[in-house]
Parts: sequence; structure tokens; C-alpha cells
Amino acid sequence: LESKLPHVGTTIFTVMSALAVEKGAVNLGQGFPDFDCDPKLIDAVTAAMKSGLNQYPPMAGVPALREAIAAKLEKIYGHKYDAATEITVTAGATQALLTAILCIVHAGDEVIIIEPVYDSYVPAIELAGGKPVPVQMTMGAEGYSVPWDRVAAAVTPRTRLIMINSPHNPTGSVLHEADMRALEDIVRGTNILIVSDEVYEHMVYDGARHESVCRYPELAGRSFVVSSFGKTYHVTGWKIGYVAAPAPLAAEFRKVHQFNVFTVNTPVQHGIATYMADPVPYLDLPLFYQRKRDLFRDGLKNTRFRLLPSDGTYFQCVDYSAISDMPETEFAKWLTTEIGVAAIPVSAFYNEPKESGIVRFCYAKKDDTLRLALERLTKV
Amino acid sequence: LESKLPHVGTTIFTVMSALAVEKGAVNLGQGFPDFDCDPKLIDAVTAAMKSGLNQYPPMAGVPALREAIAAKLEKIYGHKYDAATEITVTAGATQALLTAILCIVHAGDEVIIIEPVYDSYVPAIELAGGKPVPVQMTMGAEGYSVPWDRVAAAVTPRTRLIMINSPHNPTGSVLHEADMRALEDIVRGTNILIVSDEVYEHMVYDGARHESVCRYPELAGRSFVVSSFGKTYHVTGWKIGYVAAPAPLAAEFRKVHQFNVFTVNTPVQHGIATYMADPVPYLDLPLFYQRKRDLFRDGLKNTRFRLLPSDGTYFQCVDYSAISDMPETEFAKWLTTEIGVAAIPVSAFYNEPKESGIVRFCYAKKDDTLRLALERLTKV
Ligand SMILES: CSCCC(=O)C(=O)O
Ligand SMILES: CSCCC(=O)C(=O)O
Repeated sequence: LESKLPHVGTTIFTVMSALAVEKGAVNLGQGFPDFDCDPKLIDAVTAAMKSGLNQYPPMAGVPALREAIAAKLEKIYGHKYDAATEITVTAGATQALLTAILCIVHAGDEVIIIEPVYDSYVPAIELAGGKPVPVQMTMGAEGYSVPWDRVAAAVTPRTRLIMINSPHNPTGSVLHEADMRALEDIVRGTNILIVSDEVYEHMVYDGARHESVCRYPELAGRSFVVSSFGKTYHVTGWKIGYVAAPAPLAAEFRKVHQFNVFTVNTPVQHGIATYMADPVPYLDLPLFYQRKRDLFRDGLKNTRFRLLPSDGTYFQCVDYSAISDMPETEFAKWLTTEIGVAAIPVSAFYNEPKESGIVRFCYAKKDDTLRLALERLTKV
Repeated sequence: LESKLPHVGTTIFTVMSALAVEKGAVNLGQGFPDFDCDPKLIDAVTAAMKSGLNQYPPMAGVPALREAIAAKLEKIYGHKYDAATEITVTAGATQALLTAILCIVHAGDEVIIIEPVYDSYVPAIELAGGKPVPVQMTMGAEGYSVPWDRVAAAVTPRTRLIMINSPHNPTGSVLHEADMRALEDIVRGTNILIVSDEVYEHMVYDGARHESVCRYPELAGRSFVVSSFGKTYHVTGWKIGYVAAPAPLAAEFRKVHQFNVFTVNTPVQHGIATYMADPVPYLDLPLFYQRKRDLFRDGLKNTRFRLLPSDGTYFQCVDYSAISDMPETEFAKWLTTEIGVAAIPVSAFYNEPKESGIVRFCYAKKDDTLRLALERLTKV
């Protein structure tokens, strides 16, 4: 049996979560909240199940949910998508990413990715027969940023797709208007498509706005915009997200989608559609997480970790080079085992070995969890 | 934009369901029940959500559910799978099929399929870069059967996979022990793998037993066995199924699975695990559906349709050549529009145009629905 993905093992998230459980460590590794979602959301899903909405929904998603998504995108980003032909509900963002890649990347096509990069991108490109072309983010006084000149230099006639992700996992950096203009300049006049992973769209802090590709017609017209309800509504285990894309791209997406998952859990779709009628839960999210970020950063100032910016997402990267010169994975395991706080090595987000002495913590946790973790980290 | 799946349009199931709604027809087309699931199952999922089980489950599935699946497979088919390494929970059977194909079919590999064939198989093989090699079922006095000599003749050194499906959609035929022995003879001594789509495993009638590949060590050792809780528990919209496979195959499956959907809805997994503790719901299924089949077949005897056997599944195929010489899709649309009963043309399950004058009805419906459909069909 010749493996299609010979380099792939168990994801770092699974490895570190298992180690955290085994060692009784505070799990700031894998990105998920340790608090509950709004009980109203559970009630809405339960009501849908009890009213008999348990059979196949339409392939692209329940109309009420697609309309709620289109209304949200118009309200926040000012871009009008047609709910019938341009919005597709997915079984989470990862499925959306693989499906988008499978539907447009042909054998030999090049796909520009920006490292550090979420660990599903490269295997997804490989399964489509494509060639990942990594460009590394640069590290400056302001933290990580995208060197657009190098992205431009990586473009070739075979470039089919550029994948971006803002707010960015794992670095917590966000793209600004200047970044989006630089990307516009790169793709204008080409037939390069974009996959824009915006799963942390509602977690941008300090009054900044999320620069969705939806805001930029030059980009929106060639983009698959991916988001996740699991992140927004604190239900990472519900596995529901969506893709917004212009009709011709959405049509190709749906061809693959219908033969991948076909469709997504019906009562969960109805429950979320009902819940979205109230925009407060997502509009309140920046302040909710900014408070947690600040609590966590304030505490880390009393440690020997050097803080990098966290302008978005629920991740905080720290430089531990003043503490240890262990490689990142070794350090993350040591931290989990000896100090009792699980973290994720940022090296796991690079495809060639790359050590920067940086690990990632997740602060989507109860304040008490964050305080306990800080207490332990202060001892390092 | 060059399509990866140029021949794919909207599935026939979506087309016919939409037409049924538009025309107010009784929908015996797309395969799903029009009655509710057991309220206990809904309560079990609700309880899981309320107890806070809403974050990422383990990638391969909730351990309690994997153990319940392994216990079921051992109890019914006598094959012991290791729940930890050999059972993977999937977002329905279609996702399981695509994932199995993506993880083992390399560019240029040949995959033998048996037509009529479920409409996701060929696009899935194409997305993997494989070559579908169709072998058509033959039609005799006993209905459809698989010509194993032709399957054997279709094997080449490039054959990577044979896909089987019993009970069979759309024909309602089932494989018997002699079929399984013939398949064993074909694969013995080769490294051909098998995908066995057994989503209707609990719908085999007249006292016959389901011939799962699990019962045949020569087959089980090289098979991905796919099943669906949506079919078994009357919740086709919940999108949950599983794959059982020997550990080395399961490991390759999980590599792709983790970058496709990553994992499946947590509370639904817990709810089904709880519910499976009571085996009555699936053990009672043959009699439940056999009664419906008999009600529907008895009624059809008063029509001009010629009945084919329905030994398994919840599908009944009928030959309408005494009524009309329209092509199948045209006839199915006419039946929906003029007679008020939606059906599925069996031609939609062939990759080369093939007209047999046969359409498929689904009898997973309330008795009253079946009676109303029969009343209308009697007028044809
Ligand atoms: C799919 S498990 C990983 C969750 C996550 O997005 C992260 O921790 O980066
Ligand atoms: C995925 S929609 C089709 C349902 C089904 O399996 C069928 O009708 O054959």
C-alpha cells in the first residue's frame, strides 16, 4: 500500500491534546473553548430536531441559513452574495478548504501558501495533485507580516491559487488594507484564484476591522471565502461552516461538495439560522476575546516569555528563547509535562523544518483556566 | 476555469425532489423516510449538548461510539475490529466513500464499479485521478445480478480497487454467499482492495442474512466497510456514518479524513453511542421495512408496472415498458408532473447512456403516503 500522504502523521493538535490529558496539564494547545455555548443555540437545534427536521436538507444548505449568511456578509462587509447560488454550507472550514482546492487545482497547478500555515493546506493541495509553493512570513518589531514582494515573485504561469488566512493562525497577526491592496496588485489581470480562510473573522481587536476579501471587489470576484460557526459560536465540535464565492466558482465547489459530504446536519443548520437572527453574539465577540487576551498577556508579562502581538484570533505566540534552546516540539512537550501547560509548537505550521523558538497558546478559556495556566507559567 | 468534473450537473435526487415539491407530487424519488426518528434518539443528542459536549471530539470519533460500532460488527458479523485503530466515524457514507477512494487510488489506477452504480462513485474516482472501469449487472428472471466472470475479466495489473454495494441501490438486489465466494476468488493472491458500501445492511428481507464482507476474512482483511446511521435510524439529515477497515487501511483513511472534515459532530456522536446500547432499533428494521415493501408491492400488482424483486434496501424498481416507451428520465418527470408520484430513473445510475425502461420508487414512507401513491399509480 503506497501512501497518498507519506509525510502525514497524527496532527500536532491531537498529539498535544492527548499529552495534556495524560499529564493533567492545562490545555492551551488545540484551539477550542473550555466554556459552553449560549443555551439558546442548543435550544434552537433541539427545537429543529423535535419539529422533525431530520432528513436531507438541500445539498447547498438550508435556505434560511444561506440567507442569514448572505445578510451578514452584506451587513458587515458590504458585499452582496446571492444566497441561492453563491453560499454553500459546509461540514466545517477544513472540509470547505479541501473541497475548494479539489474543485479548482488540477495536477501540476501551483498553489502559493504563506507559512506558518494551517496543517491541512499542504495535504489538501497534494491530494488534488497540485504543488504547494510556500512563502514565509517575515518577523519584525511588529511581529509577523506577509512579504508581498516575495509572494509576487513566487507567481508563475502555473499559479492557480493563492491561499490567505486573516486573522492568522497561529501567529495572531491580521492583514491590513495595505496588504489587501498588495494582493490586488498581484492578481489583477491574471486568472489566479484566492482561498481566503477567515474563520477568526469576528476576533479582531483594538478597534481594528477585519479586512475580509469581500470588501475588495477585485478580490471577492475570484475568492472562496471560508468561515466557521464553530469558532464564532463556541461549538467547535458541531462541524459547520460555509463558503461564499461568485456563482461560477460556487458551481464548481458544489460539484465536489455533493460527492464529498453531500450536505450538512439539518437540525444544526436550522438552529444556527434561528440563532443568527440575533447579531449580538458575533458582534460582541471582539470585546469578549479582547478581555481574555488582555488578561492573559498581562499575566505573561510576569514571566520570562517574550510576547508577540495578538491582533486577532484566540492565539498568543510567545518567544521562549530567553528560557530554553530546545526545539519547539520538545519545548512544548516539556512545558506540558513539567510545567503543566500545553502549547503548540509553531514549527508544526512549516513544511520544511524551521525553528524560531516560538510556541502558541490558546486563550479561548475560562478566566480561571487562564489564571491557573499563568500561575504555572510564572514558575518557568 | 476548467472544471474538474465537467460532466457533473445537479444530482438526479435534487432535481426530482425539487420537481416533486413544485408539482405537489408524492415524493418516492430521493431515498429518505417521511416519518420521524425515535424521540429517544433526539433526547440523547440533546442531553449531550446540554452536558457541554460541544467541542472537537477525537479525530477518529468519540471512543464510546467507536466501541459500540465494533461491538455491533462483532455481534452480527462475527468480525472483531479494534475500536481504537480500525473504526472511524464519518460525516455520512458519501464522505466515507470519497475519503476511502482519495486515500488509496493513485493517478492512473483502475477502479472496478458495478453498474447501475450510486452517482458519487465515478466523480470520486475521477477526483483521485483514477479510471472507473464499469461492469454492468445482468438482468434475468430473478432480477439484477453481478456477472462475476465479467468482473474477473475486467481485472488488470492496474486494478487497485473493486467497489461493491449490497443491499444494492437502486436495484434492491442483495449479494449471496456464492457472490462473496466469487469475489474472494477474484481478489485472492492480488493486492486489490475493496470498498463495500453496506449502508442498507439492516434492510434485508424474507429471512435472508446480510452478506457483509466482514463475514469473509479474505475480504474483510482488504476492505473498507462503509455504513450510515442516517439510513438505520431514520435521520438521513444527520450526516453520520462510519468506516471499518484493517488498521493499515484505517491509518491511510484517517490521514485524508483529518484534512477533509477532521471529525464529526460531537453531540450527535454521543447521542448515537447512547442509543446503540439498545440493539432493538436496528434488529427490528428488517420486519419494519419488509411490511412496507409488501404493502407497496401488493398495491403495485393492481397497476401496469411490472415488479422487479426488492430483496433489500428501501427501493422498489419497476419496469414500465408495458405503459410507455419514453426514456427513463422523461418518464420519471412525466410521472411526477402528470400522475403526482416522483420516481428516480435507473439510467441516472449508468455512466454511458443506458435505457432499460425501469424507474425506482422509495418505500421508506408512512403507510398513508404509500397508499396515496398507489392510488395515483393505479390510474397510469
Ligand atoms: C482541527 S483541531 C485544531 C484546532 C485549530 O484550529 C488549532 O488549534 O489551530
Ligand atoms: C444523497 S441524496 C440520495 C439519497 C439516496 O441515497 C438515494 O436516493 O439513492
